[in-house]
Amino acid sequence: MCRWNAYVGEPLVIGELLYRTRHGLIDQSLHARMGAETTNGDDFGVGWYGAGDRAVPARYRSVNPAWNDVNLRELADHIESPLFMAHIRAAVGSPVQQMNCHPFRHGRWLFVHNGLIRGFQAMRRDLLLEVDPSLFLGIAGSTDSELLFHLALTFGLEEDPLGAMERAVAYVEARGGEHGVEHPVQMTVGIADGERLWAIRYSSERSSRTLFVSADLDAVRRLHPDNERLQQLSEGDRVVVSEPLADLSGAWLEVPESTGLVVANGVVEQRPFEPR
Amino acid sequence: MCRWNAYVGEPLVIGELLYRTRHGLIDQSLHARMGAETTNGDDFGVGWYGAGDRAVPARYRSVNPAWNDVNLRELADHIESPLFMAHIRAAVGSPVQQMNCHPFRHGRWLFVHNGLIRGFQAMRRDLLLEVDPSLFLGIAGSTDSELLFHLALTFGLEEDPLGAMERAVAYVEARGGEHGVEHPVQMTVGIADGERLWAIRYSSERSSRTLFVSADLDAVRRLHPDNERLQQLSEGDRVVVSEPLADLSGAWLEVPESTGLVVANGVVEQRPFEPR
Amino acid sequence: MCRWNAYVGEPLVIGELLYRTRHGLIDQSLHARMGAETTNGDDFGVGWYGAGDRAVPARYRSVNPAWNDVNLRELADHIESPLFMAHIRAAVGSPVQQMNCHPFRHGRWLFVHNGLIRGFQAMRRDLLLEVDPSLFLGIAGSTDSELLFHLALTFGLEEDPLGAMERAVAYVEARGGEHGVEHPVQMTVGIADGERLWAIRYSSERSSRTLFVSADLDAVRRLHPDNERLQQLSEGDRVVVSEPLADLSGAWLEVPESTGLVVANGVVEQRPFEPR
Amino acid sequence: MCRWNAYVGEPLVIGELLYRTRHGLIDQSLHARMGAETTNGDDFGVGWYGAGDRAVPARYRSVNPAWNDVNLRELADHIESPLFMAHIRAAVGSPVQQMNCHPFRHGRWLFVHNGLIRGFQAMRRDLLLEVDPSLFLGIAGSTDSELLFHLALTFGLEEDPLGAMERAVAYVEARGGEHGVEHPVQMTVGIADGERLWAIRYSSERSSRTLFVSADLDAVRRLHPDNERLQQLSEGDRVVVSEPLADLSGAWLEVPESTGLVVANGVVEQRPFEPR
Repeated sequence: MCRWNAYVGEPLVIGELLYRTRHGLIDQSLHARMGAETTNGDDFGVGWYGAGDRAVPARYRSVNPAWNDVNLRELADHIESPLFMAHIRAAVGSPVQQMNCHPFRHGRWLFVHNGLIRGFQAMRRDLLLEVDPSLFLGIAGSTDSELLFHLALTFGLEEDPLGAMERAVAYVEARGGEHGVEHPVQMTVGIADGERLWAIRYSSERSSRTLFVSADLDAVRRLHPDNERLQQLSEGDRVVVSEPLADLSGAWLEVPESTGLVVANGVVEQRPFEPR
Repeated sequence: MCRWNAYVGEPLVIGELLYRTRHGLIDQSLHARMGAETTNGDDFGVGWYGAGDRAVPARYRSVNPAWNDVNLRELADHIESPLFMAHIRAAVGSPVQQMNCHPFRHGRWLFVHNGLIRGFQAMRRDLLLEVDPSLFLGIAGSTDSELLFHLALTFGLEEDPLGAMERAVAYVEARGGEHGVEHPVQMTVGIADGERLWAIRYSSERSSRTLFVSADLDAVRRLHPDNERLQQLSEGDRVVVSEPLADLSGAWLEVPESTGLVVANGVVEQRPFEPR
Repeated sequence: MCRWNAYVGEPLVIGELLYRTRHGLIDQSLHARMGAETTNGDDFGVGWYGAGDRAVPARYRSVNPAWNDVNLRELADHIESPLFMAHIRAAVGSPVQQMNCHPFRHGRWLFVHNGLIRGFQAMRRDLLLEVDPSLFLGIAGSTDSELLFHLALTFGLEEDPLGAMERAVAYVEARGGEHGVEHPVQMTVGIADGERLWAIRYSSERSSRTLFVSADLDAVRRLHPDNERLQQLSEGDRVVVSEPLADLSGAWLEVPESTGLVVANGVVEQRPFEPR
Repeated sequence: MCRWNAYVGEPLVIGELLYRTRHGLIDQSLHARMGAETTNGDDFGVGWYGAGDRAVPARYRSVNPAWNDVNLRELADHIESPLFMAHIRAAVGSPVQQMNCHPFRHGRWLFVHNGLIRGFQAMRRDLLLEVDPSLFLGIAGSTDSELLFHLALTFGLEEDPLGAMERAVAYVEARGGEHGVEHPVQMTVGIADGERLWAIRYSSERSSRTLFVSADLDAVRRLHPDNERLQQLSEGDRVVVSEPLADLSGAWLEVPESTGLVVANGVVEQRPFEPR
């Protein structure tokens, strides 16, 4: 459906990852190779934390296709950030409007989702009721993604992102079962709080959308000594992407099925993702 | 907050009422005189029934200000309709996005609202729960107006528009009371089904936004024998407006406080509007 | 670059050709098969003549991708026209903005273009100077297509559309030669005046974008007696398209290289297109 | 027609001047007090230089009304700049589209304009011809303002901004005279190159739109010892505005009729502006 990228590391000009990589995210908005749809032209959004105060991330979201948005290009060339996420959407069912653009935000938290909740229209009312009333007003749009985020917030995302996502997914799968939906959840998800980045690859049918994390830079640099872009990145910088940004052998590690990652201080930790 | 117009009668080019009257709706989008806000520039929408099949009205809705929308001008000049409604919005609280633009639609029904539900954010979850689950999916946006429409649909709008609106308003007022909101409802409302037009002026505090209906044309024409526009209208044509379109003495009758109208076949019936 | 369709015949609901044909124009906005680009998502426009007065055609143009434009779907379902043109654009060089959307209009004339003027940026000033000063103000955007239209108007399009287009193309080719551009013009063009439809397939290199015209309906119907849509069309109805709307053998005739068509009263006339 | 603000000094969060002053620019987009129009809701733009490299300023421009643009609010809260300009437009004649939004840009230069060239449609072709062919391609839109900027560039703006503007205005006035336009130019103009800020107040009829520059901060602070915002500003910070941002006595100096300013390193120099 969609594509997303996330970066955490030394402050980087956002455009480096959006525009200036072969098969970067903006190129993928026209020509995705590994997604369910080749065109991701319905809308997009970028969320980023400042180098200083990281209490409230900024967002730029628009219902133009990413590839022709003049403002996105301007911002991408001028904004530098130590932690940012970008998302391009091929809308499925939900209206194309700004409040439906990722990333979603709650306080210092950002959230992006590639995938869908199957049978969402039938389940939507039930899921909305489960959202904590104090969080209910935060739901400004009509997507399955935003509702999944608010379920996870209800289930404790701010204390334990991966655990809360497991509980939220389990809840959706239980409701889906009641509505006769065989495989309710398909997702890769990115979550950030200004310091850390979480990423999840999961689907009820255990056949999830692709997700990759950049390898240890030192190793990659030795393999590609002539690549200028790689030389600019720092040791602990990490990128998580729906599909690889370039065809560098050894540069991208596929995140395994049903797995959650935490990236912090340049270290990637991995653990099984098991909704229950 | 907003302004709206509705017309029912012989097929009329929409632009006649939007652009080609002194102080027409588009002019009001910049310079409303009687509204709570002088600028109604956040978004707009027009809904109209075709001269033939009236089963599904068409809509054109946009988040541009009405006064500079090139497409609206094109459509207004070329579309002729026996029954149409137009609405311009000064957004209060709700995001400016297409799904929040009036008129709202359900099957053959159109609905516009000027005013607000006070304390809506606090009540929103309760009100959503009261909407019939089969109607729940029809709520695509996040406004108080669209939710009020779906409450009225839940309470029987398709059989008895004025009665259902009374029940819906009473329900909102009861919930408002629980939340400590003194005067929850402020509204003028327009409703159409392709043949008839209903209009309501009401507020919990009995101090409602203005609403006017055009007088019997025959009388008005005798008063203004030189007015070309009036000569073009037919006997049974009626216009309902938030504020008068021109300063023709005798042409506009103020709808009384707490009153509902039905306009059908050129006849205007009036009755008290009493939520309970 | 782009795709376009044009229809002339008995009044037809516009959506029949935009949405309700296999591989219709809106589908082509996502998945064009024969174009230089597979995605035509930058902007679009529709122009149509009313069944009554055909003096000024109406337009609806937008910078949204055609496939997700809610208003386009509404209009396409409700507007009936005896002569209309629709265009979807994959922008090359020119900004995506409403004034750059086809069809362009001058009085009763509509104009759509698929292709480009190579070396346009270098030639633009020269070409602008050639436009008749009285027509100069009609140029509201910055595309090669709109400028080509105004050159043709300067060279007599309103009296002799094909001849004026030949002169305009010859002029561009001459200027291109001066700027060292080898093959300056690549185009299929559609032109209408409310009664007739002209179509041209031409390129300086004699390797032009595809263009097709629907065959005589009677013959096609005999080949496909079970096709409901074909049965609805009338004898003299004709469609001109960048690529065929469905895979009906015998239904589409490819317009030959360097050829101009006139469609009027159900009759298609064809002649060589020879800029000089 | 329009309103604009410019700031030069210590890096400042843009939103401080756009949103967080009484009667700030966004408030003026709805309720201008001193302008020719009270509503400036057609489009807007912000241009800013980074704290580091000032070679290419960034821009965010949009055809939404400034007061409801969610992205503008996000950016204004997160972007800090030592030199920025913001502009809100009430369009007169020119289409509302992104390429017509101020500020205009050429290399490191930014340009905003409040006012108009009278008789512009009649003069447009002549003025375009005077633009240096090497600059011609930089004209992406259709406004009088952008063309005035390119005339000044043609006449040497990059070497001598005020002198080039005098020559450009004199040229327009001469062409206007030929076309029988009595007072062709009405303007306040802001120009920046990353280090310095120029501002001009001028009109052919010597009755120009208002323009103000902030007074020496030290003096103002002594007058308003309790104003927190003033305490945050540094000695050399300067603001130039179409109308005062708050009613602080002594804080705003009206720029005299027919005058040009240069603001650099906290010093404001003033000289007569005399087109010839």
